[in-house]
Amino acid sequence: MMTESRSATVVVDAVGGDFAPDEVLSGVALALASDSSLRVVLAGPAEVVEPFASREGDRVTALVTTQVIEMDEHPASAVRTKKDSSIVAGCRLVKEGGADAFFSAGSTGAAMAAATLVMGRIPGVMRPAIATVIPTAGAPTVLLDVGANADCKPEYLVQFAQMGAAYASIVLGAHAPRVALLNIGEEPTKGSTLAIEAHRLMAEQVAGFIGNVEGRDVLAGEADVIVTDGFTGNVALKLLEGTSKALLGQVKDAMTSSAMNKAAASVLKPSLQRLKDRLDPDTYGGAPLLGVSGVCIIGHGSSKSKAVCNAIRVAAQAARGGLTEHIAEAVSAN
Amino acid sequence: MMTESRSATVVVDAVGGDFAPDEVLSGVALALASDSSLRVVLAGPAEVVEPFASREGDRVTALVTTQVIEMDEHPASAVRTKKDSSIVAGCRLVKEGGADAFFSAGSTGAAMAAATLVMGRIPGVMRPAIATVIPTAGAPTVLLDVGANADCKPEYLVQFAQMGAAYASIVLGAHAPRVALLNIGEEPTKGSTLAIEAHRLMAEQVAGFIGNVEGRDVLAGEADVIVTDGFTGNVALKLLEGTSKALLGQVKDAMTSSAMNKAAASVLKPSLQRLKDRLDPDTYGGAPLLGVSGVCIIGHGSSKSKAVCNAIRVAAQAARGGLTEHIAEAVSAN
Repeated sequence: MMTESRSATVVVDAVGGDFAPDEVLSGVALALASDSSLRVVLAGPAEVVEPFASREGDRVTALVTTQVIEMDEHPASAVRTKKDSSIVAGCRLVKEGGADAFFSAGSTGAAMAAATLVMGRIPGVMRPAIATVIPTAGAPTVLLDVGANADCKPEYLVQFAQMGAAYASIVLGAHAPRVALLNIGEEPTKGSTLAIEAHRLMAEQVAGFIGNVEGRDVLAGEADVIVTDGFTGNVALKLLEGTSKALLGQVKDAMTSSAMNKAAASVLKPSLQRLKDRLDPDTYGGAPLLGVSGVCIIGHGSSKSKAVCNAIRVAAQAARGGLTEHIAEAVSAN
Repeated sequence: MMTESRSATVVVDAVGGDFAPDEVLSGVALALASDSSLRVVLAGPAEVVEPFASREGDRVTALVTTQVIEMDEHPASAVRTKKDSSIVAGCRLVKEGGADAFFSAGSTGAAMAAATLVMGRIPGVMRPAIATVIPTAGAPTVLLDVGANADCKPEYLVQFAQMGAAYASIVLGAHAPRVALLNIGEEPTKGSTLAIEAHRLMAEQVAGFIGNVEGRDVLAGEADVIVTDGFTGNVALKLLEGTSKALLGQVKDAMTSSAMNKAAASVLKPSLQRLKDRLDPDTYGGAPLLGVSGVCIIGHGSSKSKAVCNAIRVAAQAARGGLTEHIAEAVSAN
């Protein structure tokens, strides 16, 4: 893509995630190999980041930090007290203009708190939201909020729609994104008080609004962006992951329940593997925190090198496409 | 089962559902054949119910009605104006003691409105809720509310827990049902204002409360009852149905993508069919509306004879087990 010719610098948290630092470093190497204009600032302890930086040459810079935020720490207080952690120092570098984007597969709460507190919100944004990209039968769909805001007001959902549309357009290449509201009926008058009022506001203020979609439509690929509150979105995302895992596991069990089944299954393996790959969330490489002043992509704790690589590529693409500026413009238009 | 020896009379809406009356009548015949102490009152137009009743003999009575509530009518106003519809007349018969339970695969909204307005609420119940039984890897799980109450207060969720536990115990045979709250984190302090307060109340007031479960745990079979508000529950149920359908469809596509795949798939067919049967919601035959003064089971609009049969059996079982009395006792204990 043409945009890849423009340089982009992504800060990567070297010690975030269940498989850090090894899988993170492998992912960085993959990303560098796939995009020659990419630069990486690797944040973490000296013994992790310095050897890698000197091995990789001038496209990788080491950002040595002395503190580590653990997965079980209280996010906001960890961010306040551990200013020299990879997460806080990484977000600060973006804030100060030393990098274009930040990626971590560490504590979601801490990354969210650091990005919000250190980078700050984009002027006009009421609440940053976490988005996720869902593979569907058609084009992928951006679902948000998936957990940043358990309690929402209708006007937050309007901004989630605008931020999600900016992301779908810049990162997924959706032209004139179709935006839907997750609800429990098709009619505008259906749903909770929140959903009914959000529908009314979205119909007035959101370009490309196509109305309500129901739970059964989430995988249909009929919308580029699906908006909901962070409680419903989080339940929906985890249910989707849980159902896919349970069903594919049960299909696998059925296929290995006898020698004859196993033989038959081996014939089908390549086709089923392609299906599994297509449903693999790693393809989309992480969840963007939308609404903060800087690109911030948060990876699954279980991210392996492929997911890390894709997340870094997505971070660079969002930065090159001017995601932050597009969101600022979209929310200030109302 | 011993309980089946006790007589139970179920009113069946002969004209409710996409495949009525044919599949409804076949379902009634199947249910009668499987339970010799079952009696059915068949509600609907004379030309549908009378020939069937005279053919089936003295275990089926015709309840001739002259009005029909269509799927697209406004539920509450249809119930108020069409007092001689199968749905309203059926609920009235239960209210007056002429039958023990009511089943319809017609308009969910109308059945819910009729049951609530005609049968009335069980004293002490704040809001009736619709429950659904989800097949899991382990024991089936009762999920509620799946759509009756889009906006909920924490104290409603406490009662949903009590009502769901009564259902799990009577209909699914769960001893000391484990009750969980659907939430977006495991800790009691996680979630929306509603979820946090509901957790606090449930911990105090609900027997067998095991804490929060997340979306990914819904299919794990770790709880006999999972409680949530009607908005989240409806999104979750439809997402579950949509995901299962999409995934099994994609597995099928992968299996028929070449002649060799087709041959291999034919070997696997029996194993996969068993999996499909196990996941089939028709096994549990309909969603109970809990909290009204009488047993009311609402079927999917797409119910075929097997689903109708199972729903009627479930209705009879709930009536024989004293579901209404158990719920009255559970909610009055607080």
